[in-house]
Amino acid sequence: MSNINNIAVLTSGGDSPGMNAGIRAVIRTGIYHGKNMFGIRRGYDGMVQGDITPMDAKSVANIIQRGGTILKTARSDEFRTVEGRKQAYENLKKHNIDALVVIGGDGTFTGASKFIEEFDMPIIGMPGTIDNDLNGTDFTIGYDTAINTVVEAVDKIRDTAESHDRLFVVEVMGRDSGLIALRSGISTGAEAVLIPELEVDYDAIMKRLDKTRKNKSSRIIIVAEGDKEGGMVVAEKIQANFPAYDVRLSILGHIQRGGSPTCMDRVLASRLGVAAVEGLLEGRKAEMAGLICGNVQFTPFNKAIKHIDKVNENLTRIVEILSL
Amino acid sequence: MSNINNIAVLTSGGDSPGMNAGIRAVIRTGIYHGKNMFGIRRGYDGMVQGDITPMDAKSVANIIQRGGTILKTARSDEFRTVEGRKQAYENLKKHNIDALVVIGGDGTFTGASKFIEEFDMPIIGMPGTIDNDLNGTDFTIGYDTAINTVVEAVDKIRDTAESHDRLFVVEVMGRDSGLIALRSGISTGAEAVLIPELEVDYDAIMKRLDKTRKNKSSRIIIVAEGDKEGGMVVAEKIQANFPAYDVRLSILGHIQRGGSPTCMDRVLASRLGVAAVEGLLEGRKAEMAGLICGNVQFTPFNKAIKHIDKVNENLTRIVEILSL
Amino acid sequence: MSNINNIAVLTSGGDSPGMNAGIRAVIRTGIYHGKNMFGIRRGYDGMVQGDITPMDAKSVANIIQRGGTILKTARSDEFRTVEGRKQAYENLKKHNIDALVVIGGDGTFTGASKFIEEFDMPIIGMPGTIDNDLNGTDFTIGYDTAINTVVEAVDKIRDTAESHDRLFVVEVMGRDSGLIALRSGISTGAEAVLIPELEVDYDAIMKRLDKTRKNKSSRIIIVAEGDKEGGMVVAEKIQANFPAYDVRLSILGHIQRGGSPTCMDRVLASRLGVAAVEGLLEGRKAEMAGLICGNVQFTPFNKAIKHIDKVNENLTRIVEILSL
Amino acid sequence: MSNINNIAVLTSGGDSPGMNAGIRAVIRTGIYHGKNMFGIRRGYDGMVQGDITPMDAKSVANIIQRGGTILKTARSDEFRTVEGRKQAYENLKKHNIDALVVIGGDGTFTGASKFIEEFDMPIIGMPGTIDNDLNGTDFTIGYDTAINTVVEAVDKIRDTAESHDRLFVVEVMGRDSGLIALRSGISTGAEAVLIPELEVDYDAIMKRLDKTRKNKSSRIIIVAEGDKEGGMVVAEKIQANFPAYDVRLSILGHIQRGGSPTCMDRVLASRLGVAAVEGLLEGRKAEMAGLICGNVQFTPFNKAIKHIDKVNENLTRIVEILSL
Repeated sequence: MSNINNIAVLTSGGDSPGMNAGIRAVIRTGIYHGKNMFGIRRGYDGMVQGDITPMDAKSVANIIQRGGTILKTARSDEFRTVEGRKQAYENLKKHNIDALVVIGGDGTFTGASKFIEEFDMPIIGMPGTIDNDLNGTDFTIGYDTAINTVVEAVDKIRDTAESHDRLFVVEVMGRDSGLIALRSGISTGAEAVLIPELEVDYDAIMKRLDKTRKNKSSRIIIVAEGDKEGGMVVAEKIQANFPAYDVRLSILGHIQRGGSPTCMDRVLASRLGVAAVEGLLEGRKAEMAGLICGNVQFTPFNKAIKHIDKVNENLTRIVEILSL
Repeated sequence: MSNINNIAVLTSGGDSPGMNAGIRAVIRTGIYHGKNMFGIRRGYDGMVQGDITPMDAKSVANIIQRGGTILKTARSDEFRTVEGRKQAYENLKKHNIDALVVIGGDGTFTGASKFIEEFDMPIIGMPGTIDNDLNGTDFTIGYDTAINTVVEAVDKIRDTAESHDRLFVVEVMGRDSGLIALRSGISTGAEAVLIPELEVDYDAIMKRLDKTRKNKSSRIIIVAEGDKEGGMVVAEKIQANFPAYDVRLSILGHIQRGGSPTCMDRVLASRLGVAAVEGLLEGRKAEMAGLICGNVQFTPFNKAIKHIDKVNENLTRIVEILSL
Repeated sequence: MSNINNIAVLTSGGDSPGMNAGIRAVIRTGIYHGKNMFGIRRGYDGMVQGDITPMDAKSVANIIQRGGTILKTARSDEFRTVEGRKQAYENLKKHNIDALVVIGGDGTFTGASKFIEEFDMPIIGMPGTIDNDLNGTDFTIGYDTAINTVVEAVDKIRDTAESHDRLFVVEVMGRDSGLIALRSGISTGAEAVLIPELEVDYDAIMKRLDKTRKNKSSRIIIVAEGDKEGGMVVAEKIQANFPAYDVRLSILGHIQRGGSPTCMDRVLASRLGVAAVEGLLEGRKAEMAGLICGNVQFTPFNKAIKHIDKVNENLTRIVEILSL
Repeated sequence: MSNINNIAVLTSGGDSPGMNAGIRAVIRTGIYHGKNMFGIRRGYDGMVQGDITPMDAKSVANIIQRGGTILKTARSDEFRTVEGRKQAYENLKKHNIDALVVIGGDGTFTGASKFIEEFDMPIIGMPGTIDNDLNGTDFTIGYDTAINTVVEAVDKIRDTAESHDRLFVVEVMGRDSGLIALRSGISTGAEAVLIPELEVDYDAIMKRLDKTRKNKSSRIIIVAEGDKEGGMVVAEKIQANFPAYDVRLSILGHIQRGGSPTCMDRVLASRLGVAAVEGLLEGRKAEMAGLICGNVQFTPFNKAIKHIDKVNENLTRIVEILSL
C-alpha cells in the first residue's frame, strides 16, 4: 500500500512536442487512482518560487494535440543551490506533495537525483526531449515529431532544389546526437549525412557527389548542429570543391521544437504518464519510465542520463546505398 | 556466392504509404550490388500480363515522399490459377529474372509461397499494409502514416465537436485488427475505442459516458471497421441511450490509404528494402523482412501471415484511464 | 461620438475555422478603443440563458491558430420566440451590454435582424461559415480552410486511386452551394464536378470519361452534398455505365469544419473583427462587415442573407478544359 | 482566326508553388484548342540551348499538387545577349513554335519584352513568384502557399516561445516587399512586423513591448528580409533594450519556396493558364494574365513589372491593434 496521496508534475529543459500529452496522462492517472494532483509551472524554477496549483481532469482536457507545454519550462540557477532546493522542498510540503513526476532530459534527471538524495522524495522521470539521447527508452517524447518536422521541411527544400538543380546543406538539431540527422537524411533521400558521432570523410563525400553527378539534378546534405564544423563550413567546403554547383544553406532552427505531436509521441507520452504514476504508487523512485521494444521499463536516473551512442552503423550504410 | 543477377520488384494488395520508398530502396540496393533491376506493374496481374520494365537508379528518384505506389497494384484472379502462374513464370524468364521482392500483405505472401513451391523462385517479402497485422515485424510499412492521418482527421473533428458539444462516432480502417483504432483513440483522447478483438461492453461504455458527463463537452468514440456492428449501429445505440446528446457519425474512408509517408514509414521501408535484396543475395527465400525491436529479422511466409493478435491489453486500459 | 461602452461577441450556426481569430480581433479592438468586452457562450442560446462573461486581451491570447470557437455555438429554439428574445435582452442589460458582434451565417443574421427590430440594439455581423454563400463579401471566414482541407483529403485519395486505377466519387460539403466542390475540383484535377446550381448532364460526363479513357489511370468526381442525387447515387450510375471501372465512394464529412485556419481566413477574420467593432463605434447597425476586392464593405443584413449564385461559369468551363 | 499552331511554355526566375498547376493548365488548354504544345526546360537558358520537347495531356498528369516546376528554372546570361536571343529564336523555329507562355516575375517579363521587340513573337506572361510584387493581379501564383508555410512555421515557433516565455525574431522572405511579412504577422498574432516599405520606429516598438509586458508570455517579431537592418540586427537591438528577455532569431529561408500549393494557388494558376493560351489565340501579346477582383485581366508587361506598393496601411494598423 502506497503512502502517496498528493503528486505533482513539472516539465523541465528544452520543450518537446508531446509534453502536454504526458502532463495529461500523469494528472488523469493520478485522479483515476484517487490521488490529489498538482502542476508546477516553469520546471524547477517554479518549484523554488512556489508556482504550484491543483489540477483536475478538466484542466488537461483538449491539450493532447498541442505542442509545447502548458506548464512551461525554464532554467533554474537557484535549484542548483542547496538553499534553492530547500525552498523548493518547503513549497512542496505546503501542498503536502509527497511525490513528483518530472518530464525532461538529462539535466532534469540530474536535478531530480540531487533532490531525492537530500529529501528522500519519490520522483519518477519521463523522457521529454527531441534529441532521443537517453538510455532506457527506444524513443524520447518529441523525437518522432521533430524528425517529421525536419522531413516536411526538407521535402519543401527538395522541391526548390529540384527546380533549380541546386545542392542544399540543411542543418538540423542534435548537439550531441546525430539521430535526427540520420533518420531525416534517410527519409529525404539525402546524398550525405554528417553527424557528431562519426568523423567526416570529405574525400568520400566529394567522390560520391561526383560519381552520381549524372543521376541527380538536386542534392541534399544533412548536417547535425553538433557536427564539428557546422552547416556553414560544410557548405563552403562543398562549394569550393564543386564550383559549378549552386550550393545553398538552410538552418532549420526552432521550428523543430514545436508543432502538434505525432501519434507515436502522443501514445508514448500517454503510456509513460500512466507508468510513471503507477510506478510511484508501487514504491518506485529515482527511475525513468521508458519504452523498450514496446514494453514499459524503468531505468535508474544515473543510468538513463549516460548518453549512449544509439547511432546504428546500418543506418549510415543505408544512406550510402540509397543515395546512388 | 549468389547466382542472382536480375531481380524484379512488385507491389500487391491494398496500397500503403511508403511503398514507393520500399521500391526505391529495392532498386537502388540491387544496383549498388551490381544487379539488373526490374519493376513489375500492377502486382501479380502485371506478372501474368508481362508488364515488366528495367529500372535504373534515376527511375526511382524523388519518389520517397510520394504516397501510393508508382508500380501500381491490382487483384489478379489469373494468378490464382496454375496456368496464370505458369504464364507469369514465363514472363519472368523472358527477362531472365531470377529473384523477386514482393511488397504487400498476407495475400501477397500466400501467392508468393505458391509460386515458390511451383517454380523454386527465390522471393523475399516486405510488409506493406496499413493494417499492421503481420507476424514478424513490429510495424508494417504504411501503418504509422495511416494512424497519423486518422489522428489529424480526428483532431479536426474534435474542433467542431468541442464547438457544438457533440459526440462523434468515428469509423476507422481495420477489418480484422483494432490497432489503428486503438492507437488513434489514445492519441485523440477518445472516450472509448471499439475493436474487433474485444467484445464490446456497452453497459460499461454508457456508464463511463454518464460518469464523466460534467468533465466533458465533446466526446469521440473510435470504431474499427471490423467491429461486429460498425460505426452506424454504434452511433444509433449511443443516441438511443443518451437522447440529450447530439450524436454524429464520420467514416474516414480512403483518405487513410494515401498521403506522403511519415519519417518512420520511410526509414522502415528503406531499411527493409535494403534487407530484402541483401537477403536474396545471401540465399534467403520465402521469408518476409521485418523490423523487431529495431533490428531486421526474417520470418518465413507461412508464419508471417498467421494473423496474430497484437492488441496490447495495456493500451485498452490506457484508453479507460485517460478518458476520465 | 459613440454611446457604446460595453460590447459582446458571440458565434452562432455551424462552426468554421477562423471564428477564434474573429473573436480575438473583436475583443482586442474593443479594448484598444477603451470599451468593456464580453463573450456570450453557445450563441443565442447562451444569450437566452445568460451565459455571459467579461473578456480581456489575455482571454483571447494564443487562439488565432485554433479551429472551432472557444465561445462555442448552438441552436436556440427559445431565441425564435418573443419570450426567449426578451429574456436574452434582459441578460444583456444586466451587464449593460449596449452593442453586439455576431459571427455566423444567414440564420445568425436573421436572428439579429429580429432582435434589432424589437430592441433597437446595435449589432454588426461577421460572415463565419464554410459555405461562402453570403452576399457582400468575396469570401466567408472558414471557406478557404475548408477547401484546403478538401484538397488535402482528395490528394490522398488520388494517391490510392492512382495505385489501383480507380474512379472515386468524393462528396464534399455545400448544401446549397457548389463553391467548395467547384474550387476543390479544379484544384485536384477532378474529371467532373456536380453542384446544386447546375443540372447534371450525365451523357456529357459519361462521354468525357469515355473519351479520356486512355490518358487517365485514375479519376475523381467531386459531388456537392446539395447535388440533387448525392454521392452514392452518382457512384452507382457511373458504375452502371462503366462496369469495367472500379468505382468507390468517399464522403468527407465533418473533417471539413475543423482544423487550424489558413492565413487567408486568419487575416480575413482579423480585418473584419476590427471593422465590426469600429463600425459599431461609428454608429452602424444591422450590417455585415465583408471584404470585397480587398476592401472592407458593409452590407445590410437583409441583403447579405439573400443567397446569390456565386458560381462562376468560367470555373465550370475550366474543369472541362483541364480534365482532358 | 488565329495563326498560332504550336505553343511552348517555360518557367523562369525563382520557383514558386503552383507553377506546375500553371504548366498543366497551359498544356491542356492548348490541346483542348487543337494546338501542338511544347515545354522548354530551365527557362530562357533552355530556350538558348534548345532544350525543348513536345508535351501531351498525359505529360502533365498528376502534377497539380506538386511544388516546384517540372520544367525547372534557371538564370540565363546568354539570353541577355543579342546572340543568345537569336539562338533561342532559331531553336523555337526548329519546332515551328509560334507563341509562348512564360511563367515568372519581373525579370521574366523584361526578357520576354525584349524578345517580342526583336522577333515579334506573341508571348503572354503568368505571374509566378511568391513575392506578390507585380502590378495587374491581386495575387501571384505561389504567394498564398508561401504565407501559409510561414504561418505554419511561426505557429510551431510560438509553441516553443510560449513554453519558454521567449521573444522570437523571425525573418521571412520579401526582398522588396513586406507583404509576406505583414500578412503572416497578422495571422500569427505577431507583436510587430518590420517591412522594407516603412521606416521602423524602434521607440514605438519598444514602448509597445513594454506596455503589453504583463499580458504576454511569448512574443513574435516578423522581419522581412528586405528590411534595412535584417533579422539579426533587430534581434540584437531588442535584446539590448530588454536584457531580461530571452531573445532568439529564426530565419525561415528556402522552405518558403516549396511545398504542395494551396487550393487558391492551384485555382489561380489553372485560371491564368487557360486565360494565357486563350489570350494568345485571341491575338494578345506582351501582356500578363492576372486576376483582379475575381476576374481575369490582361496588363501590358511594361506596366506589370512596375513594382507598386501594395502595402495596405490598414494592415499595419491591424498588427498594432491586435497585438495588445
